[in-house]
Amino acid sequence: MRRVVCPGSFDPVTNGHLDIIGRASSLYDEVYVAIGFNRAKRSGLFTIEERIDMLHEVVEQYGNVRVEAFEGLLVNFCKEREIPAIIKGLRAVTDFDYELQMAQMNYGLTEVETLFVATNPLYSFLSSSLIKEVATYGGDVSGLVPETVLRRLTERLAQG
Amino acid sequence: MRRVVCPGSFDPVTNGHLDIIGRASSLYDEVYVAIGFNRAKRSGLFTIEERIDMLHEVVEQYGNVRVEAFEGLLVNFCKEREIPAIIKGLRAVTDFDYELQMAQMNYGLTEVETLFVATNPLYSFLSSSLIKEVATYGGDVSGLVPETVLRRLTERLAQG
Amino acid sequence: MRRVVCPGSFDPVTNGHLDIIGRASSLYDEVYVAIGFNRAKRSGLFTIEERIDMLHEVVEQYGNVRVEAFEGLLVNFCKEREIPAIIKGLRAVTDFDYELQMAQMNYGLTEVETLFVATNPLYSFLSSSLIKEVATYGGDVSGLVPETVLRRLTERLAQG
Amino acid sequence: MRRVVCPGSFDPVTNGHLDIIGRASSLYDEVYVAIGFNRAKRSGLFTIEERIDMLHEVVEQYGNVRVEAFEGLLVNFCKEREIPAIIKGLRAVTDFDYELQMAQMNYGLTEVETLFVATNPLYSFLSSSLIKEVATYGGDVSGLVPETVLRRLTERLAQG
Amino acid sequence: MRRVVCPGSFDPVTNGHLDIIGRASSLYDEVYVAIGFNRAKRSGLFTIEERIDMLHEVVEQYGNVRVEAFEGLLVNFCKEREIPAIIKGLRAVTDFDYELQMAQMNYGLTEVETLFVATNPLYSFLSSSLIKEVATYGGDVSGLVPETVLRRLTERLAQG
Amino acid sequence: MRRVVCPGSFDPVTNGHLDIIGRASSLYDEVYVAIGFNRAKRSGLFTIEERIDMLHEVVEQYGNVRVEAFEGLLVNFCKEREIPAIIKGLRAVTDFDYELQMAQMNYGLTEVETLFVATNPLYSFLSSSLIKEVATYGGDVSGLVPETVLRRLTERLAQG
Repeated sequence: MRRVVCPGSFDPVTNGHLDIIGRASSLYDEVYVAIGFNRAKRSGLFTIEERIDMLHEVVEQYGNVRVEAFEGLLVNFCKEREIPAIIKGLRAVTDFDYELQMAQMNYGLTEVETLFVATNPLYSFLSSSLIKEVATYGGDVSGLVPETVLRRLTERLAQG
Repeated sequence: MRRVVCPGSFDPVTNGHLDIIGRASSLYDEVYVAIGFNRAKRSGLFTIEERIDMLHEVVEQYGNVRVEAFEGLLVNFCKEREIPAIIKGLRAVTDFDYELQMAQMNYGLTEVETLFVATNPLYSFLSSSLIKEVATYGGDVSGLVPETVLRRLTERLAQG
Repeated sequence: MRRVVCPGSFDPVTNGHLDIIGRASSLYDEVYVAIGFNRAKRSGLFTIEERIDMLHEVVEQYGNVRVEAFEGLLVNFCKEREIPAIIKGLRAVTDFDYELQMAQMNYGLTEVETLFVATNPLYSFLSSSLIKEVATYGGDVSGLVPETVLRRLTERLAQG
Repeated sequence: MRRVVCPGSFDPVTNGHLDIIGRASSLYDEVYVAIGFNRAKRSGLFTIEERIDMLHEVVEQYGNVRVEAFEGLLVNFCKEREIPAIIKGLRAVTDFDYELQMAQMNYGLTEVETLFVATNPLYSFLSSSLIKEVATYGGDVSGLVPETVLRRLTERLAQG
Repeated sequence: MRRVVCPGSFDPVTNGHLDIIGRASSLYDEVYVAIGFNRAKRSGLFTIEERIDMLHEVVEQYGNVRVEAFEGLLVNFCKEREIPAIIKGLRAVTDFDYELQMAQMNYGLTEVETLFVATNPLYSFLSSSLIKEVATYGGDVSGLVPETVLRRLTERLAQG
Repeated sequence: MRRVVCPGSFDPVTNGHLDIIGRASSLYDEVYVAIGFNRAKRSGLFTIEERIDMLHEVVEQYGNVRVEAFEGLLVNFCKEREIPAIIKGLRAVTDFDYELQMAQMNYGLTEVETLFVATNPLYSFLSSSLIKEVATYGGDVSGLVPETVLRRLTERLAQG
C-alpha cells in the first residue's frame, strides 16, 4: 500500500490544489490531504472546519483521498500514519528554493521524502491568497476555484 | 493613442522608479503613474497626498505623465481608463518570479498585459524600503532619490 | 506610430511565438518579426526562406505584422528602421537572467529598449528545439505549432 | 504495483545517482533505471554496455531495480512499459527551470508524470561531467562514485 | 591585518553559522561576529545578552573571533572599526538575489565589500527559524546546533 | 600574507574583470590572475600569450597582482602556490547556481575556499563573449574594455 500526503493551508482549496490532489490520487493507493493549523494563532478567511468541509466535497470524486487537519510538524503527522512521502506542487523557482530546504530538513530529521510535481501551467499563477485578494475587490474567480468554494467565498465576502 | 500604467506604492519615489517612468514616457503616448493604497490599513512613511505631490514634482519634466492614486485591483483601474498594459521595472530574478504570476493572473482575468523592462543597472539595488532603512540610520541617500524626496525624507525623519 | 520588433530564429514558429506576436500586434501600431541568421554557419531544420514563408502564412491574420530576416546585431536592425523597442516572451527564470543581461547591453549600446511579456502558461514549456526533438521521435505536436508548420515538419522529417 | 523510471545518461553513475535510485527503490514496487542514448551520435567516456554493467553491479543490492537502455523519447519508453511516472533528483534551481519545462511537455503529450526529489546535500555538487573533469586532471573522486566506477574510471583514463 | 565581519541575528547560532565563522577565522586575521538588533522592536527567542553568551562559548575555540552587538547600519559598524569587508554564507539562489542588492547598496554607499561563501552542503537547509519551529514541536535538532544552544533551547521551550 | 586567485579565460579581459581584480587587490596582500587553458583544444580569439600581455598592461597599476596561465584543475594551481581562496565576481543568479556547485566540489576535494563578490552593477551585463559578438558586428565597445584591449580587438577583427 503506497501512501502519500498532500499538505497545505487550503484557505480555500483552489483548482490548482485539486489538480495536484487528483494526480496524486492516480499515482498512489492512498492520499492524505493534511491541513496545517496553529491553535495559538487562529487566522484565515475560513475556519479549519469549513476548509475540511470544502475539501471533503471536492475530493469525493476520488475514492482514495482522506482529509485531516494537523497541528505541529508535518513529519510527525507522517510518522504516526506511516506515510513515507510528501507530495507538493511547485509553481515557480522561488517556491522551489524554500521547499528544497524544507525537504532536506525533513529528510534529515525523519527520512520522510518530499516529491515535487510541476503544477499544471493553467494554474501556475494561482494561490489562495491571490484568489482572496481578487475576490475581495470584486474580481471574477470562477474557473479558478471549485463551485462550492466560489459560492462560500461570495457569501463570506458579502458579510464583510 | 498608446497608453500604459506604471504602478507602485512610491513611498517615496526613487531614482529607480523615475528611470522607468521616463523610459515609459518616451515609449508611450500617455503614462499613468498609479499609487496603490488601502484605506483600511493606512501605513507608510508618507501619506498618499504627499506621495502624489512628490511624484507631480518629479514627472513634470515629461509632458505626458499623469499621477493618480487607486484602491482595489490594478486591472480595474486599467479597465476604467482603457489602459491595455502595465509596465514594470524588474531588478532581480525573485522579483520576476512573483511578478510573472501576477501578470498571468491579471491577463487571465482581464487581458490587461504586463510589460517588464530591465531596471538601469545603476539602480538595480534600490527600493523604497532600503532607502528608508538607510536614511533612518543616517546613511547618505542623495543620488538615489530626487532632490525633493531627499529634502522631505530628512524633514520627516528629523521629526521621527 | 508605435513600432516594436519581435526577434527569434523561428525554426520553426510555434504557437508560443504566435501568441506573443498576436499580443504585440494589439499593443503596437506596427510589429516587425525579425529572423536572425548567420550566413557563415548555415544551420537549422528549415531554411530562412522557409521560415519566412511559414511566418507570412501565420501572421497574415494580423494586418500590422511584417516579417524580415536580419544578420548581425539586432540593435542595428532596430536603428535602421527606427524601432525603439524589442518585445520578448519569457518562459522561465533562467531565460530571464540571460535576457536581462542582453537587454542591459542593448540599452547601454544604443538605448533600444527591451520589453518582456509573460508567455501564456499554456505554452510555457514550448520551444522550437523541444518541438523538433519530440517530432523526430514520432511524438504528436499538433496543438503546439500552427497547421502549416505541422504539415511541413512532418514532410521534412519523413525525408529524414 | 507502483512503477517509476529513473532516467539519465549515467556516464558514469555517481553516488548522487545511486542515492536517488536507492530512495526510489524504497518508495516504489519497481524501479527502472533508463539509460538514454542516440545511435547516430555515439559519444561519452563509457559505452552503453559498460554503463549498463556498472549500474547492474551497483543496484544489485536493491531487489526491485531493473536497468535498460533506450533510444528516442523517454515518454515512449514509459508508455510501452506502463510506467506512469518519472523520478528525478534536483540539485539546483537552474536544473529545476529546464526540468519543469520538460515535465510539463511530457505530461501534456502523454500524461506521464514527473516527480522531483531533492538530492542529498552531500551530493548536491556532483555530476558525471564534473567527475570526469576532476579525474582527468588527477583529482581524487573516491567517495563520490561507487568502487567499481572508480576502478574503471582510473583504467580508462590511464589508457588516455 | 585583514579583518572581516560576519553579521546575523544569531537567534540562536546554528552549526551552519559556526561553519562560516570557522572558515572566516582561517581566511582572515580577525573576525567580528556582529549581532544586529533594534532597541525599538525587542523580539526573538533569546535576548541579545544570551546570544552573545552562546556565541562566546562556541567561538572560543578560534583565537581570532570577537563577538559584538550593533544597532543601525552594518556599514557604519564596519566604518567605525575599519573593517573593509562583510562575509556571508549563502544557502540558496533566493538568498543570493536579496543579498546581491544589499551588497551593491552597501558598496555604493561606503565601499564596504561583501564576500559570499557557499555554505557547507550539510547545513544548506539550516536556519535559526527552522530550528526554533522544529524544536517547538518536539523535533530533534541535536547535530544542527552546538551543544550549549541545544541545552538552552530545550530549557527555554520547556518554560513555554 | 593573505593570498587569493582570480581565475578566468580572459579572452579578452573586460572592465568587469578589471573591477573585480582591483577590488581583490585592495582586500588581499597578493592577487593571482590565473588564465585557464587546455593545450588539447586551442581556441579563443586571442592566444594565451596575448591574454597575458593584455592583463599585464592593465594590472600594472596595482602593485600586488601577478598574472599566470594554468592547465588542469584550478585547485591544483592553488595548492601548489599555497593560495587558500578563489575570488569570483557574480553577475547573475544562473552564474551563482553553477558556481555554487563548483565551489562545493572544490572545497570538498581540497578545502580551497571560493569567495563571491557582486559585480559592479555598471558591468553586470558584460562578458567576453558578448564583447566579441558586439565588436564583430561593428558595435561600439569602448567603455566596456580597457584601451589596450579595444585597440587589439579592432586590429584582430579587421584581419577577419
